[in-house]
Amino acid sequence: MQTNDIIVAPATAMGGAIAVIRVSGKGSVDMVDRIFLGRQPLTEAKSHTIHYGEIRDYERVIDDVVVAVFRAPHSYTGEESVEISIHGSRYIASEVIRLLCEEGARMAEAGEFSQRALLAGRIDLSQAEAVADLIAAETRAEHAIASTQMRGGYSRMLDELRNELLDICSLVELELDFSEEDVEFADRTQLENMLDEVEAVVWRLMQSFRMGNAIREGVRVAIVGRPNVGKSTLLNALLQDNRAMVSDIPGTTRDTVEENIVIDDIRFRFIDTAGLRETDDRLEKMGIERTEMAIKEADIIIYVTDPSQKNLELPQVDERQKLLVVVNKMDTTDECNIEGAIYVSARYDEGTDKLRDELSELVNLDSVYQGEVVVSNMRHAYALNDAHMHLNRAKVAIKERLSAELLAEHLRGAINALGEITGRITSDDILSNVFSRFCIGK
Amino acid sequence: MQTNDIIVAPATAMGGAIAVIRVSGKGSVDMVDRIFLGRQPLTEAKSHTIHYGEIRDYERVIDDVVVAVFRAPHSYTGEESVEISIHGSRYIASEVIRLLCEEGARMAEAGEFSQRALLAGRIDLSQAEAVADLIAAETRAEHAIASTQMRGGYSRMLDELRNELLDICSLVELELDFSEEDVEFADRTQLENMLDEVEAVVWRLMQSFRMGNAIREGVRVAIVGRPNVGKSTLLNALLQDNRAMVSDIPGTTRDTVEENIVIDDIRFRFIDTAGLRETDDRLEKMGIERTEMAIKEADIIIYVTDPSQKNLELPQVDERQKLLVVVNKMDTTDECNIEGAIYVSARYDEGTDKLRDELSELVNLDSVYQGEVVVSNMRHAYALNDAHMHLNRAKVAIKERLSAELLAEHLRGAINALGEITGRITSDDILSNVFSRFCIGK
Repeated sequence: MQTNDIIVAPATAMGGAIAVIRVSGKGSVDMVDRIFLGRQPLTEAKSHTIHYGEIRDYERVIDDVVVAVFRAPHSYTGEESVEISIHGSRYIASEVIRLLCEEGARMAEAGEFSQRALLAGRIDLSQAEAVADLIAAETRAEHAIASTQMRGGYSRMLDELRNELLDICSLVELELDFSEEDVEFADRTQLENMLDEVEAVVWRLMQSFRMGNAIREGVRVAIVGRPNVGKSTLLNALLQDNRAMVSDIPGTTRDTVEENIVIDDIRFRFIDTAGLRETDDRLEKMGIERTEMAIKEADIIIYVTDPSQKNLELPQVDERQKLLVVVNKMDTTDECNIEGAIYVSARYDEGTDKLRDELSELVNLDSVYQGEVVVSNMRHAYALNDAHMHLNRAKVAIKERLSAELLAEHLRGAINALGEITGRITSDDILSNVFSRFCIGK
Repeated sequence: MQTNDIIVAPATAMGGAIAVIRVSGKGSVDMVDRIFLGRQPLTEAKSHTIHYGEIRDYERVIDDVVVAVFRAPHSYTGEESVEISIHGSRYIASEVIRLLCEEGARMAEAGEFSQRALLAGRIDLSQAEAVADLIAAETRAEHAIASTQMRGGYSRMLDELRNELLDICSLVELELDFSEEDVEFADRTQLENMLDEVEAVVWRLMQSFRMGNAIREGVRVAIVGRPNVGKSTLLNALLQDNRAMVSDIPGTTRDTVEENIVIDDIRFRFIDTAGLRETDDRLEKMGIERTEMAIKEADIIIYVTDPSQKNLELPQVDERQKLLVVVNKMDTTDECNIEGAIYVSARYDEGTDKLRDELSELVNLDSVYQGEVVVSNMRHAYALNDAHMHLNRAKVAIKERLSAELLAEHLRGAINALGEITGRITSDDILSNVFSRFCIGK
């Protein structure tokens, strides 16, 4: 990147009262000054000061603006930067950007401001990703995860793990230099204990991805049960509108219907499914296959039944899944006793608050709110898995007294995998992949 | 309005990299400082300075922000103000606004920041309206009109007219005080000349509304002609897509279709119409009635014919309308000679550039770009009409030597009508009507 590569982009969305155009790069204050007419030239402006004036295309006034000056390194990018607050018109924004491009700036690519902050060492890669997550945050839980990650607690934790592994690795590599003498500088039992500790933290981080992903993508809830027990009616009651098609003909729901509901700041993705029963109808069969898939992928399964059903046909759940039993149509009877079940009348929207509370309790967010590190990024989850695999192989190498070369190789593997998360080990591919998901102007 | 009535609202749209929350009112710096943790308290911050820090809800960090401090009267509203740049997340915006409301602020109503600027005497009503127009501006022409109006040239012109009328009026009202003596302080011929001058300016402003409205709402162009001459194909060629339904069955276009096309920064609203011919089909008849309505309302009428048509059946146009004759299907023949016509093949998109040029020339924007005052606001047009009517009646009163009372009444009427535009004469109704059309945060 050249020193004089000045980038420009709108930093806000258009459509509000004002909009902000961001300019960054060495010489950006001079550049903006060339199209700016205020009481004083911007060239002498101190960092963190605001200046009122006009943006002009020669004699033609484009807009009355407020310009904020940031001197290097005290800006988001670490470079000399300017933020121009304009009236929130698309036309004005495009004119201001056109003028700056005529002065030699170019349109920033998606995420390019953050990429510059990264290159300037102001933030690491996981913090840059957290900025994007923070912008996208819609609930308190998403905000808490992104906020913790942006503040660098996560990066520090990973750096500590990585430094421990680097210490171990340098000892082992020292042995390689003296390989003919067959010495062991690193006590193998001590090594194993240290690796156990590192692995435990990596494992905890990996496990947190279930929670992190559920918060980011929503907690998947499958609503299942025999035909005509009122699954769609229940979903509608939870949604409080009429999204799912409801009728009293069994088998009405042929496809899965997905709806998002936020309960206590947690996004639940409800999947209404086709009723489970034997059928010859080809379309209905396909629906049932999808139901089975939905059950497999769900985090929580709500099994719906009604008092007329003779017996429960509870679906198989694995150890990471949670099952709630709901007895619907309680408006039709008073007699029903199933242990641990939640009794509702979806039709009259009775008992559904209790169901909401139970759902919310299944996802306990206290640790997230207390700032505990939770992994929510798929790229990180892969890297952690990779690190974990290498750590396990390193432990095997120690246990089975395999060569120091092999041990060192897996230690390096784990170190690199952890380094990929914070961007200490990185490639242009990773960078461009990460930043291309950013919005323009960030 | 109380001194401590602090208002808060997002000033930008959400969905960008950053968003700006605007706070205004006496004490707003102190208020923001209570939820802000930076290197130094904001309370000591000078006007037009920027401060980096955290917005906190007690211990919980909501966001890393950049806060801009504006001290009274050097802000948009004229009041002490703060602008908080946050990461562009709806969640963060709502949290920051919640915290400020807990500290005693309230959500601003639409246009309330501009209304405060008006009350502080920083802008007049027509300038406030221009701000809203500027934000909505999508073309250079809309921008030019709003920009001239915002800069106050229009207000000064109206104030001058009003002052002239006030001078005349006070002379006439002096006569009323001496009415028993039957004196005339104001020379009637001189009065008439002065009124003529004022009336000429008002008339020119009224006339400019045709242009202003066309720029604001788009220039209405009706495409008319006998069935199957290719009106829809022509519109499609101009649009360069396939919006209108096209077939070679005469009478395909039953309803009017409207499309917007920007040519040389002018927005044209093309109205494709049902072909004009005798018919018994009830639906088609309705279409033809709508065509006749579209012709009446149009600023420009494009009459389309083809070489096979024996004679032209040009529609009646009034003196304010312009007519273009287009001969289509020139790919089917070389022989056709109609004076002043534009020859095109809509099917092969030939000759349509010439048509675009002609349309653009019919709307000459030079005066607009040179900053001439053009009225684009319906409210102003009504007020100018009102002023004009009173001026004419005042002139009649002079000519027919009617009473000084009647003359003074109409002079007052004209003065008030002009004062309504800039808000010198105003009512809560006018104010709330004007500002309710603003966006929140402006």
